[in-house]
Amino acid sequence: MSIRSLKKSDNKKHFCNLLSQLTYTGNISEEQFLEKYYRIKSNQNYYICVIEIDKNIIAAGTLFIEDKFIHDCGTVGHIEDIIVDKDQRGKNFGKNIINHLIDKARECGCYKIILNCNEHNKDFYTKLGFMNKELQMALYFT
Amino acid sequence: MSIRSLKKSDNKKHFCNLLSQLTYTGNISEEQFLEKYYRIKSNQNYYICVIEIDKNIIAAGTLFIEDKFIHDCGTVGHIEDIIVDKDQRGKNFGKNIINHLIDKARECGCYKIILNCNEHNKDFYTKLGFMNKELQMALYFT
Repeated sequence: MSIRSLKKSDNKKHFCNLLSQLTYTGNISEEQFLEKYYRIKSNQNYYICVIEIDKNIIAAGTLFIEDKFIHDCGTVGHIEDIIVDKDQRGKNFGKNIINHLIDKARECGCYKIILNCNEHNKDFYTKLGFMNKELQMALYFT
Repeated sequence: MSIRSLKKSDNKKHFCNLLSQLTYTGNISEEQFLEKYYRIKSNQNYYICVIEIDKNIIAAGTLFIEDKFIHDCGTVGHIEDIIVDKDQRGKNFGKNIINHLIDKARECGCYKIILNCNEHNKDFYTKLGFMNKELQMALYFT
């Protein structure tokens, strides 16, 4: 099992199908995927990692680094869009993805990492070293 | 009262002093400020706005736009580091900053805006259209 950076060939390995287990994705064409892929890759503040098994992406997670003025002009790591394929759960892939992103954020010099989760996943993140700090508030346009 | 984008001259108008009312900032030199300022300005996903009164920055807020693959390769607006000077509270500056950032996120085509706050500020954001969705979890390196 190895964790690697997202590649442009990963849409053909069902990366977007995997994301659709997380939330609504829509029908993302190869053209749309590549446009977003190049946009994200050109921004050094983003890192998307995946786990591939038998030419299928079965787990993924995103870290993006936010530049701040606070904390000595520091940086904060945001973890987003963590997903493990429903047929591959209970095998520590999620834990491995999170620990990989924690290591990456530490390497990048972040002073903290934050993420949002529902009550159901709170224990999972607590075991990985996170603690509940604040409330996440959301405003939907669509 | 007008809300405008952060300028490179704003450190001299006590922008970083204002942020120190929010959390630890450290002693940010003019050189450090400018290095971070140019880094943020060169990234089109960031927008920092301020309100100036009598050559003092008395309110500030940040919006950054996160590129996603989910939601038809959509974007999410993150609101961060909202602060109003302690001597200027109760005059709707905070509300005006948030509404300004909501408008900006809508213009940018975001499908939602998210932010984190403590229990004490929940009602403030609820009145502005936000609802409590998830838990914010944090892991501190320092």
